[in-house]
Amino acid sequence: MKISARNTLKGTVKKVSPGAINTEIVVEIAPGVEVTSVITKASAENLGVSEGKEAYVVIKSSDVMVAVD
Amino acid sequence: MKISARNTLKGTVKKVSPGAINTEIVVEIAPGVEVTSVITKASAENLGVSEGKEAYVVIKSSDVMVAVD
Amino acid sequence: MKISARNTLKGTVKKVSPGAINTEIVVEIAPGVEVTSVITKASAENLGVSEGKEAYVVIKSSDVMVAVD
Amino acid sequence: MKISARNTLKGTVKKVSPGAINTEIVVEIAPGVEVTSVITKASAENLGVSEGKEAYVVIKSSDVMVAVD
Amino acid sequence: MKISARNTLKGTVKKVSPGAINTEIVVEIAPGVEVTSVITKASAENLGVSEGKEAYVVIKSSDVMVAVD
Amino acid sequence: MKISARNTLKGTVKKVSPGAINTEIVVEIAPGVEVTSVITKASAENLGVSEGKEAYVVIKSSDVMVAVD
Repeated sequence: MKISARNTLKGTVKKVSPGAINTEIVVEIAPGVEVTSVITKASAENLGVSEGKEAYVVIKSSDVMVAVD
Repeated sequence: MKISARNTLKGTVKKVSPGAINTEIVVEIAPGVEVTSVITKASAENLGVSEGKEAYVVIKSSDVMVAVD
Repeated sequence: MKISARNTLKGTVKKVSPGAINTEIVVEIAPGVEVTSVITKASAENLGVSEGKEAYVVIKSSDVMVAVD
Repeated sequence: MKISARNTLKGTVKKVSPGAINTEIVVEIAPGVEVTSVITKASAENLGVSEGKEAYVVIKSSDVMVAVD
Repeated sequence: MKISARNTLKGTVKKVSPGAINTEIVVEIAPGVEVTSVITKASAENLGVSEGKEAYVVIKSSDVMVAVD
Repeated sequence: MKISARNTLKGTVKKVSPGAINTEIVVEIAPGVEVTSVITKASAENLGVSEGKEAYVVIKSSDVMVAVD
């Protein structure tokens, strides 16, 4: 399946923290560059994400803000 | 100002494409790793983003999905 | 690729309306049930969506609200 | 109240799963077509959603992605 | 219709700027406090928003970030 | 840091409710006008938000809907 989300960044899962409904997942997408995701616990279990595994973070471009110093 | 968004990734602006209401901005956050953002044209002008400049992409963790092969 | 977004609904593209930066796409996911999406024009072109083709709408569950009468 | 969100899909609540802060709600919007929503627990209680009741899922079109096979 | 979005703020439309696909709308929700919204042009026309009219801005709480100085 | 999000509204924190992964925060941005935010618990702790403190709510304009009576 090919998705419209413009940002699909490959990385390695660094941390998986499950809560009651949601799970927080940290993916390292480049050396020292980490992205944090919150998805439902059911999705995280369904995907089988676990520390050390390869995964992608996927972000719709309208959800990305820009900032400058 | 310190913001709650978990993901603030520093990079270099590669491309700025203005439309009528929105502007599309591409930021390279690591060698070969680009993130595309769509923000309002007014915001882009107000921030003064232009190709070659440093900028951050900022993403709320609840807007980040995870995928696996 | 298997994605964490909980909602992946299969349907048929009914309408594609391109703008300067964004394109609006209407997908019929059940008889008489349509979902409207706005994605970047570049994504729409890259996916090759056109009227009459099969497509999925994909929605992260944290972006779905609930209402009652 | 009439809202700008383009997608308001009527259905029947199939499942309500409350957590600490958020509640996950599954609504069947067409035979065999389910949409999952995560809203705050306070909202879910305030709306009085429960299994078997009619409800709508409401989605802003800029939160809808498109995918193709 | 009663919606799960926690934030429904009443105000007065100050400005409506239509583009090709999207329309930008500014609503003053308290004296000197303005909120900017980008919705589809079709939605804006369908709602009949125009300068000087009463309107609400509606925001899902998971889309609200917090910042401190 | 200057961010592209069009809506940055100053206020006072009225309530902080932590869950397992997420924390719900209520900020009063004008007399009697409250905005509810859900951010990760880690972000809330990192920002040091607590009742009575000044804080901003930050909202991307593409996440703001409009409604009329």
